[in-house]
Amino acid sequence: MHLTLTRVRAAYARIEAVDRREIWIGLRPLAELEAEATALDDRLSAGEQLPLAGRLLAVKGNIDVAGLPTTAGCPSYAYEPTADAPAVARLRAAGALVIGTTNLDQFATGLVGTRSPYGAVRNAHDPERVSGGSSSGSAVAVALGIADLALGTDTAGSGRVPAAFNGIVGLKPTYGLVPTEGVVPACASLDCVTVFARTLPEAEQALALMSTPVPYQAPARAPGPWRVAVPPTTQLGELAPGWAAAYEAAAERLRAAGAVLQPLDPAPFLEAAAMLYEGAFVAERYTAVGPFIDGAPTPPDLDPTVAGIITSARDIPAHRLFADQAKLVGLRAAALAALSDADALLLPTTPHHPTLAEVAADPLGVNAALGRFTNSTNLFDQCAVAAPAGEVDGLPFGVMLIGPAHTDERLARLAALLTPPVPLVVIGAHLTGEPLNPQLLALGARLIGPTATAPHYRLHALSTTPPKPGLEYVGEGGSPIEAELWELPAEGLGRLTAALPHPMTLGRINLPDGTSAPGFLCEPYAVRESKDITSYGGWRAYTNAPEV
Amino acid sequence: MHLTLTRVRAAYARIEAVDRREIWIGLRPLAELEAEATALDDRLSAGEQLPLAGRLLAVKGNIDVAGLPTTAGCPSYAYEPTADAPAVARLRAAGALVIGTTNLDQFATGLVGTRSPYGAVRNAHDPERVSGGSSSGSAVAVALGIADLALGTDTAGSGRVPAAFNGIVGLKPTYGLVPTEGVVPACASLDCVTVFARTLPEAEQALALMSTPVPYQAPARAPGPWRVAVPPTTQLGELAPGWAAAYEAAAERLRAAGAVLQPLDPAPFLEAAAMLYEGAFVAERYTAVGPFIDGAPTPPDLDPTVAGIITSARDIPAHRLFADQAKLVGLRAAALAALSDADALLLPTTPHHPTLAEVAADPLGVNAALGRFTNSTNLFDQCAVAAPAGEVDGLPFGVMLIGPAHTDERLARLAALLTPPVPLVVIGAHLTGEPLNPQLLALGARLIGPTATAPHYRLHALSTTPPKPGLEYVGEGGSPIEAELWELPAEGLGRLTAALPHPMTLGRINLPDGTSAPGFLCEPYAVRESKDITSYGGWRAYTNAPEV
Repeated sequence: MHLTLTRVRAAYARIEAVDRREIWIGLRPLAELEAEATALDDRLSAGEQLPLAGRLLAVKGNIDVAGLPTTAGCPSYAYEPTADAPAVARLRAAGALVIGTTNLDQFATGLVGTRSPYGAVRNAHDPERVSGGSSSGSAVAVALGIADLALGTDTAGSGRVPAAFNGIVGLKPTYGLVPTEGVVPACASLDCVTVFARTLPEAEQALALMSTPVPYQAPARAPGPWRVAVPPTTQLGELAPGWAAAYEAAAERLRAAGAVLQPLDPAPFLEAAAMLYEGAFVAERYTAVGPFIDGAPTPPDLDPTVAGIITSARDIPAHRLFADQAKLVGLRAAALAALSDADALLLPTTPHHPTLAEVAADPLGVNAALGRFTNSTNLFDQCAVAAPAGEVDGLPFGVMLIGPAHTDERLARLAALLTPPVPLVVIGAHLTGEPLNPQLLALGARLIGPTATAPHYRLHALSTTPPKPGLEYVGEGGSPIEAELWELPAEGLGRLTAALPHPMTLGRINLPDGTSAPGFLCEPYAVRESKDITSYGGWRAYTNAPEV
Repeated sequence: MHLTLTRVRAAYARIEAVDRREIWIGLRPLAELEAEATALDDRLSAGEQLPLAGRLLAVKGNIDVAGLPTTAGCPSYAYEPTADAPAVARLRAAGALVIGTTNLDQFATGLVGTRSPYGAVRNAHDPERVSGGSSSGSAVAVALGIADLALGTDTAGSGRVPAAFNGIVGLKPTYGLVPTEGVVPACASLDCVTVFARTLPEAEQALALMSTPVPYQAPARAPGPWRVAVPPTTQLGELAPGWAAAYEAAAERLRAAGAVLQPLDPAPFLEAAAMLYEGAFVAERYTAVGPFIDGAPTPPDLDPTVAGIITSARDIPAHRLFADQAKLVGLRAAALAALSDADALLLPTTPHHPTLAEVAADPLGVNAALGRFTNSTNLFDQCAVAAPAGEVDGLPFGVMLIGPAHTDERLARLAALLTPPVPLVVIGAHLTGEPLNPQLLALGARLIGPTATAPHYRLHALSTTPPKPGLEYVGEGGSPIEAELWELPAEGLGRLTAALPHPMTLGRINLPDGTSAPGFLCEPYAVRESKDITSYGGWRAYTNAPEV
């Protein structure tokens, strides 16, 4: 088996196909990856077991990857690291293959993804809109299906904002859980290495493998249902059209999955968020790279917005920092008190999703607004999961679950509840009381109620054992067929699909109200060999008919 | 909406249909449930929100339900409780409706489900085999899809053995997490109230709602991948044919999902298990109900096996209990030391699944063997999740994940990894490099490699926008069609199924090696209006052909 080699080649074909050169700062040559893939496939063939065998990894350009320059988005700053950062090394040791380093807002200073001499990173779903940043290239590489996993960093939201804009998962772990050695600092006292993936379990697996194996104690929680603090949308400031409703729908999904929702005044979170750029904390960015930026001659490849932010931070007096720190202590105490009986705080990840043009017109204002909900997390020593929560106007909408340090796993469990159940239309042996109904029940399905198909179907008695009906869409000349609407976990529908025998299929069934839902149909060959029983109106009426 | 009323009536119709009268000791009249359902539906219509709205609950006959006698499986012992046990009351307060009380091994003394004057409870999947016990009726009511949730109790395995035999989930929580007030004691220092459900999230939700809201501290764990202790099957004693392989397959699934497997010598667990019935601990059962059993005249409805066990426990001298307790301290220390670096211990739930006839022939011996893996859990103050792990010879096979007190949530997360990914055959726009391939990637799919269908298919160019292929099984006169095999989480396949547009369907596709896997087909109407492109051999060849 050359599984890894196959996947590497597919990924590089996809890199070509998507034509998003700005994702990458240091894309490794295909030949190097092919050699690594072949070596890995040989180890796997020899029986070696690796948890991330053949997973393709993209690494944000401010994290060291041996053999590639670490640029932090600034070519003249670049250095050649002698070793992988520990976060990278741990994933490689588990079997991941590094594709390359990715673009970012220079020095990880920005939430937009446009502040880079390597080009503005376009959103995976709408190239007119920003990718979000600063971990821009990493998020888009995962969202476009090139990399399975990608590393980012997060100081003010850089590991979460691009997750939301690109419809993927971003884990912002507890500070200190993943080492930041080999990472160009933004604000060293706040920086976290983060991970992106398309699904929550993949992201969690990578985080587990990156974490430093020092035992910790998750904060105690009182048993009982999940408790989630949900501020009213009226206290969240302006949101993009449709986003307040999408946020409320996410809260409702948690409630429907058994969580208790608690009101919360988000004021301390929003006040602390505003301090991150407006106050003295930004001076820590000067500590990190100010001397480089101030060096003569001024490097020509500085992003002007980033350079402006960092150089103006040089003159912030220390007494302002003392004042801000004191204020933050108060805000943090208020925030933690408000959350004391909650497992997590639910927030939209950002207030809106700007276009590239909007960011170009107001680089500082738009960027600052994007951090309204993310900025406070690291200041309060919290961890967060950014997860997709549906779409608004065809683009991803994302929410965050935020909790105290070392509740990373708890937050991931809550985030898993954001996936809604799916509907299923049944018309035959899976109807209530019919022989295969227990299959549905065993998958966690629950009856919503009786319904019928739209009047465009014909029903066939298939020559199967046991007897089953075959529903066929015909348009004109059809009738409504008796049906039931059920709902079940998406995992249950997947298991049902995976276990379908010939000639049954699952497809879309039109309902009388003009909507449609997935349900049971059958293969074309089966209806040709069957008896038309449409006139009975349904499977139950047919099987209960005296002549049958 | 009369959703709850609909579900109640469906459940009672199912009670009739399955004709398993022995499940119930106190089945409530339908009219009472209808009245409760209507009242609940009215509350829901008025906007009330209840986490378990309309979930149907069965309660083991040794747990108090106001209005029904608590029998513990012995009519002459029965009393009329004045209130629900707190575990029941909490679920009712959350919106659950109690259907009735269920059969059990008398005084919860047994792991078989046959020791009851209300009849031996037959397995949900094979009426020749035992249900398992002592929470026999509760497990079968859930497995047959009558109740959504059921309460059991567990002293030596009574909440897990029947879960395994009936293919459902059983949570044996940490001692003390769920109150045992209103529960007839078996061994008061070990008894736990347990919950059964068909899916893990449903069971977890119920457990959260039953738990006493006192904060606790989960034991610290070192970050990093899940670590699961897996004893070699050679040290587990005799297992039923095929069960060792099924157990190893469950371990392999955990490994494939990223867990690190550790070897472990199960000797202390097995030695402690043997002590539960052979040693002095059984005397606690005499403490609970011995005086009742010894009362004159001897009640006629005592199960002779149960009466024998409990009365012979009367004469166990206290010095033997001291000796056993001292021995247990040593075994527990050895067990916890062996598990000190592991998150959980994986074990088969039982060594085999006996028939009713086998139990009748050797009531004590067969029962004792069933507790080999479950008996030690409560003695060691551990918690456990019993979860389905596939089938052997068409019957459910179950495993347990066992961990230290207060790791209930951690064990549930691990148990969720037991669900394997599912395969998917793609033949058109979802192929690598084709336009809809990113959909697959976004669902967490990974390419296994290129393949083809069996030579029994025809391929059509459907008149869809964008163009899509329609694969049709024809048997004779077909050809092999180019395909790719992918795998993805069952949840991802469910979401793909739920989002399928007309005329695409998912059904079973035959592969050249004689196996089959779910994959893309289409509705009958679509192939009638399409162009046959079988001669191209596949969708890519067709779309790349110069004349297209």
